Amino acid sequence: MSRKIGIIGMGNVGAAAAHYIVAGGYADDLVLIDKNEAKVTSDAVDFEEAMPNLPFHTNITINDYDSLKDADVIISAIGDISLQLVSNGDRFIELPGNVEKVKDVGEKIKASGFNGVLVVITNPVDVITGLFQEVTGLPKNQVIGTGTLLDSARMKRAVAKNLNIDSRCVSGYNLGEHGNSQFAAWSTVKALGQPITEIAREKNLDLDKIDQEARVGGFTVFNGKHYTNYGVSTAGVRAALAILSDANEELCVSNYREEYGVYLSYPVIVGRNGVVTSTKLDLTKEELEKLQYSADFIKQKTKEAIG
Amino acid sequence: MSRKIGIIGMGNVGAAAAHYIVAGGYADDLVLIDKNEAKVTSDAVDFEEAMPNLPFHTNITINDYDSLKDADVIISAIGDISLQLVSNGDRFIELPGNVEKVKDVGEKIKASGFNGVLVVITNPVDVITGLFQEVTGLPKNQVIGTGTLLDSARMKRAVAKNLNIDSRCVSGYNLGEHGNSQFAAWSTVKALGQPITEIAREKNLDLDKIDQEARVGGFTVFNGKHYTNYGVSTAGVRAALAILSDANEELCVSNYREEYGVYLSYPVIVGRNGVVTSTKLDLTKEELEKLQYSADFIKQKTKEAIG
Amino acid sequence: MSRKIGIIGMGNVGAAAAHYIVAGGYADDLVLIDKNEAKVTSDAVDFEEAMPNLPFHTNITINDYDSLKDADVIISAIGDISLQLVSNGDRFIELPGNVEKVKDVGEKIKASGFNGVLVVITNPVDVITGLFQEVTGLPKNQVIGTGTLLDSARMKRAVAKNLNIDSRCVSGYNLGEHGNSQFAAWSTVKALGQPITEIAREKNLDLDKIDQEARVGGFTVFNGKHYTNYGVSTAGVRAALAILSDANEELCVSNYREEYGVYLSYPVIVGRNGVVTSTKLDLTKEELEKLQYSADFIKQKTKEAIG
Amino acid sequence: MSRKIGIIGMGNVGAAAAHYIVAGGYADDLVLIDKNEAKVTSDAVDFEEAMPNLPFHTNITINDYDSLKDADVIISAIGDISLQLVSNGDRFIELPGNVEKVKDVGEKIKASGFNGVLVVITNPVDVITGLFQEVTGLPKNQVIGTGTLLDSARMKRAVAKNLNIDSRCVSGYNLGEHGNSQFAAWSTVKALGQPITEIAREKNLDLDKIDQEARVGGFTVFNGKHYTNYGVSTAGVRAALAILSDANEELCVSNYREEYGVYLSYPVIVGRNGVVTSTKLDLTKEELEKLQYSADFIKQKTKEAIG
Repeated sequence: MSRKIGIIGMGNVGAAAAHYIVAGGYADDLVLIDKNEAKVTSDAVDFEEAMPNLPFHTNITINDYDSLKDADVIISAIGDISLQLVSNGDRFIELPGNVEKVKDVGEKIKASGFNGVLVVITNPVDVITGLFQEVTGLPKNQVIGTGTLLDSARMKRAVAKNLNIDSRCVSGYNLGEHGNSQFAAWSTVKALGQPITEIAREKNLDLDKIDQEARVGGFTVFNGKHYTNYGVSTAGVRAALAILSDANEELCVSNYREEYGVYLSYPVIVGRNGVVTSTKLDLTKEELEKLQYSADFIKQKTKEAIG
Repeated sequence: MSRKIGIIGMGNVGAAAAHYIVAGGYADDLVLIDKNEAKVTSDAVDFEEAMPNLPFHTNITINDYDSLKDADVIISAIGDISLQLVSNGDRFIELPGNVEKVKDVGEKIKASGFNGVLVVITNPVDVITGLFQEVTGLPKNQVIGTGTLLDSARMKRAVAKNLNIDSRCVSGYNLGEHGNSQFAAWSTVKALGQPITEIAREKNLDLDKIDQEARVGGFTVFNGKHYTNYGVSTAGVRAALAILSDANEELCVSNYREEYGVYLSYPVIVGRNGVVTSTKLDLTKEELEKLQYSADFIKQKTKEAIG
Repeated sequence: MSRKIGIIGMGNVGAAAAHYIVAGGYADDLVLIDKNEAKVTSDAVDFEEAMPNLPFHTNITINDYDSLKDADVIISAIGDISLQLVSNGDRFIELPGNVEKVKDVGEKIKASGFNGVLVVITNPVDVITGLFQEVTGLPKNQVIGTGTLLDSARMKRAVAKNLNIDSRCVSGYNLGEHGNSQFAAWSTVKALGQPITEIAREKNLDLDKIDQEARVGGFTVFNGKHYTNYGVSTAGVRAALAILSDANEELCVSNYREEYGVYLSYPVIVGRNGVVTSTKLDLTKEELEKLQYSADFIKQKTKEAIG
Repeated sequence: MSRKIGIIGMGNVGAAAAHYIVAGGYADDLVLIDKNEAKVTSDAVDFEEAMPNLPFHTNITINDYDSLKDADVIISAIGDISLQLVSNGDRFIELPGNVEKVKDVGEKIKASGFNGVLVVITNPVDVITGLFQEVTGLPKNQVIGTGTLLDSARMKRAVAKNLNIDSRCVSGYNLGEHGNSQFAAWSTVKALGQPITEIAREKNLDLDKIDQEARVGGFTVFNGKHYTNYGVSTAGVRAALAILSDANEELCVSNYREEYGVYLSYPVIVGRNGVVTSTKLDLTKEELEKLQYSADFIKQKTKEAIG
């Protein structure tokens, strides 16, 4: 029945996601929504003016919530990262404003009759993903956040740079909050056939420094242009493609964890209905504590913000 | 020997071109250059943080002119479109500033030993393309501008919208200056098996209005976000891909026209060495006059600006 | 709702189409059907063993007509081209056998409740497409054949070789029967901005010889491996992609022509519901006669074969 | 300097590799070589007749060893798998014939001045890869075989089917000979965040049966069509792409192992110069014994065949 993706929020992230989708021919129908009618119209026309020079055709609709009814995936890229200029990158400065936006947008999604999977990029993503689930009333498995899929990519890039290998050949995860309480779960990370801890010992790598590099990566990006968009939008589209193709792909996205009672990032299997099942990591005691801390932090922030 | 592309200028256009190239895996080596070291670093890191979630590997180097020596293509996306906010979209407000930048960048390209094809997006593109050719000393066939490849796409989109067909199925060209003196050469435009003039007669289409829509398209994009990037960067990358694959593809790009003594857009065959040969359109007398006018305008502007 | 394609017939053509779709990630669900259970199982497993090394996930189902119910497109690649070894390439030797197969397959498609678009590659394609329409009871616009989309490609290749340009930059069509009564409608063919007839005059090209080259192309392929598959399967998938993305793309496929009362190839606009509208070519008197002849031939053959 | 790939051997494997490359636009120049001039011409023309309906341009040259001089990668797909019909799938029946062919082809590759990376698919691949290295005189790191990259994919598919997950989300390797002495190194295999041995315990999976399924996969494919091509050609092209893009990607290919004195499959990092470095797996004692056995087997077969 053809692939239909909705993207809500045409800021730098939403536009980069849309560009990636249009350039790759990944959707047949693309619904772009933004309160700033001039901006979303501008991007839509710009994409359409790219199409005569592209190999693929994409049908673009703007600002029509009704047409989300039969979408396979909606990506929420709403938010205002410029606020983080003031907060020095703390994503929670976006929370109060985004809560209001999410309530509004979530109601409209619900009213559209949408019954696909919602992929949330909006920050602070774990809290917001939970809120979206509540407002839309979608089953928990049908609402996920990009979470530490991005941070895991940052970790992989940092490790790969140190080992001079392709970042896709580093396996493992950053877990927990897509925020300061997250951590690289080094016990899960492997490269060159070895646990990263073993490699670190042999090659005298400082994992704390690499962890730092991964975090700094995000700040380098943010400081250099006052937003980040390519890494996170690619993570969002990757999740969307797994959903569209019912891939049952393992992705470290923010998902509702019964055992913690919150949304946080932990690798799960993602298919057409969203989260299909969870992986089960053999974390160290220290990592489990960090994860609990991260869960508690998200829980508290959720309570403060949403009640 | 693998594909190597350089992009100079990491503004909205250069970054969108780089994103398209990275996401599509179209280059093996990508050299990104910008005076704003923080911005180009930011984008490079952002792309690298996308790569663990992408199917392709791209090696990114930043701010290293030496590494352009064996590049196949360099795309110039330097410029400051924000100046056009003052000039109401008149691209010539960018000229004085860009002339200085182009002299600087052109000298550096020359010094690198680059002997591939230079694809210029920088505005006003016809004048700047000529200047780039002069400064780099590259053969004229190895320096082209995206020119009205974008405007032709805009025209195709506008025609296609009116006929409810895919914009790739409208053939024909906008010719001359990538600027106000350009024109849709309606005698070259066909769709649905018919000359557009015939269709216009039958369906009561107002071609002047469609021409206007195509121009307005550009302004809609510019007004909505104060820059345009997806359409024009896609045009630039399309030209780059034709060069890389030695496609001998027909593209309406800005190229040096002996008969006019200036760079202007007219469809030519583009391959690994740039312009291979020219097409020969059967333009109407009126179209030829418009083209002459456009050529004269570019000539005069070139003289004023560069001497 | 994700993209679902069915392919019936896993010979060289069906398998090449499936390979192209799997390698490009163009379908989310792919239903492969063949009477030879061992062969279709073999190909399905082979594709699945390719997937760990591919960027995309495709869900493959075999020999399940029921699952075609909600397919967007079905490609019919049934047939036995090896018969043409005896007939010296005459596609009609396949007719008697294919009529029986089509009746069987068509009934099963009908029983599945399929309501998408059927793209027929099975030869002799114009007669068979008509038969498929009759048996499935699908609206005429929802049943098309690849027809001379392949022959047009052959003509474009031959012209492009002579002019040393990209074959995608030759416009125009071969019309009529995908068989011996077809013809290159030279009045529709353009390259390098000129009618091909003009170029032929200037460059002393012998269009009859090029026409011959285009036909010989097919025989060169057939004689070299006793089947043809890449060109024709690419044509079929191109049509399928236009349908999936509702592109309203102009394609010279076999479609039901009221004015002739048969299926034959003439460029039409193809979208999600199949044929949306027709183009209207300004053919010469001679070309119109050839088209009438081709139509009469198909009509007679249809009558003989199906009654 | 654009991407150039050579493929020697236009059987089912070579043709499928070429199709994948042409359809994906992965090479700018593609050199196809086969002793059967009619077959390679047939495929080349067939690909060229696909191109007007493809988004990418590929320049195809046939049977010109000289043009391999500046190729980045050559894929050897020579061989005659039909012999295995007699040997019940034993790849060594191909050895005597392939030794002669490889000597001939290897000399011609050497004479061309080729200095890229040779990717060998020809069976029995470990012995043949060693022979190719010897005959061409290329450095050992520049000659690799697809080896158990295919068998690892088969294992991943079998595991993934049992767990209902994407086969790309199973990590780990089949090691040793691409032949009967190979084995799934279960200690390296993980899925769902767990060692496969752990999952097997929990879910009562029979790993020996899965290992068997993986092997049977190959026979299912072979028996169903008397050759296998999609899985193995995809493995070969994946290696080629890692080389072209200098990805430093981890691939379980056949590479020269100093410690065993033979070519066998073990994961290594592959970039533009072929093998960059090796991984170091923590194999169990039993697995190390199996690997030694496999190495000894290859060594003996090499001695017998080549001396």
